[in-house]
Amino acid sequence: MDNFLKIGERIEDLGLKNLKIIQNPEFFCFGMDAVLLSWFVSKHTKGCIDIIDLGTGTGIIPLLLYGKTKARSITGLEIQEPLVEMARRSMVINGLTSQIKILHGDIKNPGEEVVPNHYDVVVSNPPYMRADAGLKNARDTKTISRHEILCSIEDILIFSKRMLKDRGRLFLVHRPERLADIISLMREYKIEVKHLQFVYPSIHKQSNLVLIEGRKGGRAGLKTEAPLIVYNEEGQYCDDIYDIYGMKKPEQGDC
Amino acid sequence: MDNFLKIGERIEDLGLKNLKIIQNPEFFCFGMDAVLLSWFVSKHTKGCIDIIDLGTGTGIIPLLLYGKTKARSITGLEIQEPLVEMARRSMVINGLTSQIKILHGDIKNPGEEVVPNHYDVVVSNPPYMRADAGLKNARDTKTISRHEILCSIEDILIFSKRMLKDRGRLFLVHRPERLADIISLMREYKIEVKHLQFVYPSIHKQSNLVLIEGRKGGRAGLKTEAPLIVYNEEGQYCDDIYDIYGMKKPEQGDC
Repeated sequence: MDNFLKIGERIEDLGLKNLKIIQNPEFFCFGMDAVLLSWFVSKHTKGCIDIIDLGTGTGIIPLLLYGKTKARSITGLEIQEPLVEMARRSMVINGLTSQIKILHGDIKNPGEEVVPNHYDVVVSNPPYMRADAGLKNARDTKTISRHEILCSIEDILIFSKRMLKDRGRLFLVHRPERLADIISLMREYKIEVKHLQFVYPSIHKQSNLVLIEGRKGGRAGLKTEAPLIVYNEEGQYCDDIYDIYGMKKPEQGDC
Repeated sequence: MDNFLKIGERIEDLGLKNLKIIQNPEFFCFGMDAVLLSWFVSKHTKGCIDIIDLGTGTGIIPLLLYGKTKARSITGLEIQEPLVEMARRSMVINGLTSQIKILHGDIKNPGEEVVPNHYDVVVSNPPYMRADAGLKNARDTKTISRHEILCSIEDILIFSKRMLKDRGRLFLVHRPERLADIISLMREYKIEVKHLQFVYPSIHKQSNLVLIEGRKGGRAGLKTEAPLIVYNEEGQYCDDIYDIYGMKKPEQGDC
C-alpha cells in the first residue's frame, strides 16, 4: 500500500465503516465542513438516490455519503487534475471504484457523462471566498479550492437547475456571510431554500458555517433547525459533534 | 388613572425606567418578539437618531426604544384606529406625548407627516402570516395584526426604501420560515441584510424567530450573531433573556 502513496501523502481513517482517504497537506485537506455537510445530507435523504458532488477535491464527501446513505450512485466532479488522481486512488484503496465515480471536469461544461435532469441530490462544499481581482497565485490548487475562481455560487445553481430532477435537492455548506447571495440566487434559479442549519463555534459566538438545503421547484417556506454548537465552554466538543463524527463521548459535559 | 382605562384594559409596567403601557386582551398584546426586536435595535444603534415603527400597535416598540436608546425622535405608525387611540393614551400616562408621536396612517400612503429620506431607522414587528385568500374575519384587529392583510413584507420595503436616509437601517423580527422571502425582497429594494440573529426556544429546537438588520445601499456580506436561546433544559429563562428583560437572574443555571 505504501508504494501507492506519493511523497507527502498520508492515509486517514474516516472512523466510518473502515473507509480511508488519501490526504496531502500540499493541497486542500478536508475539514469539519465536509463532515457536517455529509451528515446534513444523510439526515435529509433516504432511499436509492443518485448523488453528484461538485468540486469533490480529494473525494471526502462521496466517501462519507457512501458510508452514511443508501445512495444508488455517487459521482464526484473535480476540475483539478492532481486532486482527481488522488481521489481515484482513494477509491481504489477502499475498493469502491464501481460505486463512486470520480470525473475530471468543469461544472460549467461537465461533459456527456453528467446527464441533465438525472440527479436526486447535488452536493457541494464550494470555495467560500470571492475571487477578487487582485488575487495572487490564482492557479495554485489551494487558492482554487478556497476562492471562486473556477466555481461560483451561480455556477453551482446553473448546474443544479439543469442536472437535478424536478423536486431534486441541492445541499451546500457555506459561510453565513454569503447567505444573502446564496438565497437570492437560489430563488432566481427556482431552487427554493427549505432547510438551514447554523453552526456556531460556541454558544456565545457568531455562526461561522451554514448548512443549506434547497429544492428544485420547491415552494417558499423554510425551517431553521436547532443550532449546531461545536465546543462547550470547557473547549470540548459538544455531544452533537461526537455523534456526527461517530466518536465516543467523554463522561462529562454537553453544551 | 383608573377612569383613564376602558373596560377590559390593564396597565403593564415594562420594568424599564418606570415606563408603562395599556394592554387589552381583546386586541393583539405585545410579546417577546417586540422586546427582542427593541433590544436588537438598541444593540446596533447609537447617537441621536430618528426612528419610525411600522404597525406600532399599542406602542410597545416606541416605548422600549425610548427606554433603551438615545433617539432624537420616535414615531409609531398604525392603521387601526382603536390601537392608535390606546397607544396615544399610553404616551399620556408616561408623559411622553412630545417625545413619541403616534400617527394614524397606512404605510402604503403615510401622509405628509412622514418625510422621505428622513429616518435613520425603520423598525417593524409586522404580521407574520400570509394573507390567504380564504381568510375569515379579515377585518378583526387581531387578524390584521397577524396576517399580511394591510402590511406585507414588500410594503415595508417600499416604505423603507423611500423613507430611510441613505445608509439608514431597517430592523425586523419575523418567522425564519419567511427568511427567503425577506432576503430576496430586501435585495430587490437595495436594502442589504447586514445582521441576522436567530432565536431558538431551547438549544435542541428549531428557531422560531429571527432578528434582521438591513442597510439601505449596503454592500453584500452579513454576520449571523450568537444564537439567542430562550429556555434552558430546566425550563428556566437563559441568562441572555434575563438580561434583555432587565430581570434579576436566579442563582443557578444558564444555557
